[in-house]
Amino acid sequence: MRATVMYSAGDVRIENAPDARPIEPTDALVAVSRAAICGSDLWPYKTMEHSETGRRMGHEAIGVVEAVGADVRTMTAGDLVAMPFAYSDGTCVFCHEGLHTSCIHGGFFGTADVDGAQAEAVRVPQADGTLVVLPVGQDDALMPSLLTLTDVMGTGHHAAVTAEVGPGKTAAVVGDGAVGLCGVLAARRLGAEQIILLGRHPDRITLAREFGATDVVSERGEEAVERVRELTDGFGVHSVLECVGLEQSMLTAIGIARPGGAVSRVGVPQDESIPAALPRFYNNVTVSGGPAPARAYIEELLPDVLEGRIEPGRVFDRSVGLDEVPDGYRAMNEREAIKVMVRP
Amino acid sequence: MRATVMYSAGDVRIENAPDARPIEPTDALVAVSRAAICGSDLWPYKTMEHSETGRRMGHEAIGVVEAVGADVRTMTAGDLVAMPFAYSDGTCVFCHEGLHTSCIHGGFFGTADVDGAQAEAVRVPQADGTLVVLPVGQDDALMPSLLTLTDVMGTGHHAAVTAEVGPGKTAAVVGDGAVGLCGVLAARRLGAEQIILLGRHPDRITLAREFGATDVVSERGEEAVERVRELTDGFGVHSVLECVGLEQSMLTAIGIARPGGAVSRVGVPQDESIPAALPRFYNNVTVSGGPAPARAYIEELLPDVLEGRIEPGRVFDRSVGLDEVPDGYRAMNEREAIKVMVRP
Repeated sequence: MRATVMYSAGDVRIENAPDARPIEPTDALVAVSRAAICGSDLWPYKTMEHSETGRRMGHEAIGVVEAVGADVRTMTAGDLVAMPFAYSDGTCVFCHEGLHTSCIHGGFFGTADVDGAQAEAVRVPQADGTLVVLPVGQDDALMPSLLTLTDVMGTGHHAAVTAEVGPGKTAAVVGDGAVGLCGVLAARRLGAEQIILLGRHPDRITLAREFGATDVVSERGEEAVERVRELTDGFGVHSVLECVGLEQSMLTAIGIARPGGAVSRVGVPQDESIPAALPRFYNNVTVSGGPAPARAYIEELLPDVLEGRIEPGRVFDRSVGLDEVPDGYRAMNEREAIKVMVRP
Repeated sequence: MRATVMYSAGDVRIENAPDARPIEPTDALVAVSRAAICGSDLWPYKTMEHSETGRRMGHEAIGVVEAVGADVRTMTAGDLVAMPFAYSDGTCVFCHEGLHTSCIHGGFFGTADVDGAQAEAVRVPQADGTLVVLPVGQDDALMPSLLTLTDVMGTGHHAAVTAEVGPGKTAAVVGDGAVGLCGVLAARRLGAEQIILLGRHPDRITLAREFGATDVVSERGEEAVERVRELTDGFGVHSVLECVGLEQSMLTAIGIARPGGAVSRVGVPQDESIPAALPRFYNNVTVSGGPAPARAYIEELLPDVLEGRIEPGRVFDRSVGLDEVPDGYRAMNEREAIKVMVRP
């Protein structure tokens, strides 16, 4: 089968790979209908050192079950399924607590253990826990939004939940990438009264406003902090969704939080520490977040997608076949595209 | 009147100072019955550079109202009052949210604006918002515990609340100082099932066990992390109360948090950033805390003190007059005393 392999920064290739197949009795084999390139794929695209064997890429997918291991109970061949970016057994203590990314028997796609989903097919461990059988057929209009439930929309929602967004509150979203845009949508969905997007790309700002952003701040650093304060009676916002993952964006995020507010960081952090200058300590600002348990949120978000109340799939502004995946990486890296969908 | 002045690290003096008096119409003048030396007073005691004018010290007090400004409505001369370490108007948006330490018209005692309480008397701004009239007379047995409500018990409670302690959960308290000990008491009061104290001083450990600690870990660093994991099925604890404020203690605190857990730091942090190695990001651990809105918690904690259900005043293991305050600083700094009460 054909699959995406990254060999070093900037070097992404489509290659022939051994056909994916179930190995464990709890595995499923899924033929990929749609996959995606993720903002987090751009970190290795910028920095990866050369690897002889390469790394199989991709962790978001919608697909059709082709085969299941002997112990799989909740799906059969032909089912359309959503595959969140982490696999999880659905039964351990952390899965029961809704934190599937910390599943005791879980892990991540596109790692040394499990291949990636930017491919014709993917082996899915812990299929009963990981996959969600979708109650619809392959509908071209719905597929992009369904696909976002496997990562970006779940991640934007996680940012909103852990930043404690709620009815009547003020929120700010740092970053106008696909996750940030989904964060805007999630904040509106959870009832935020004012939603300030910190971003500067006109096309993304336009989409953010359609998703519910009430204000846009295009300044950076201390100027951005000042602007947000001006927009919020001098206080800052209750909830900050940090959707970038750089030290500067985290500093801005903490700077615009209101005393007693909450900052959630869901951009995979590129820094080892949280900048937390002493004045912020005095503000009782909470810092939370981490990888989203996208699996936990699908049940909640799916009806809104199916019934058209939210359309997070609009973050996909480019669609490519497998052979064009390398150019998809380039386009996202150069910010030509917000997010790229892959149709193997 | 006599008051405590710090001139530089290690140099604390008792001096004659101008008599405290109300200045603003919202002020009260309080004759100090009991004050205290705080762990946070030890930071300047260790590091303060020489000051010509010195710094007036002390921010915890129980006292008797001697005079009130024209606008003070809720107390009169003769009332016994508790004075939390921050003053606050009680009416602003943050006070209404229970975050009195961020009061728009508030501030802290023992600063450039307002003198300290390790003195014969203290001027209290925003008296109606700041002071709590106590429904008891000066009772020697109760005074120590009442005094803890102005800082350490409120701070331990804040650590427990913001670390999301609750019935059936596991908790760990990093640090066996007075705040850590009150954190143990607060965690038990809020229903924690297992409470692990990280400390190594035998007398403090004894008190911690009486306050509700179920386990004690005296190792440090990675060894402490391993021990806590052993005590918690390998997972770590739901709630970590970080009551020291050093980088190493924060690293330990984050290291012993269970995935999805919460770390609250209430030790005034001596570092500008939170160490948050990437593996911790993957655990979705929340970091919160800050200065405790002690004022907000007095109503909740006071009945338990008055009715003897908790006795946080046991953290005071030494009582001194004003003239012995310098020796009280020395004793706390050398860990001869857990916490020193001052009887001016």
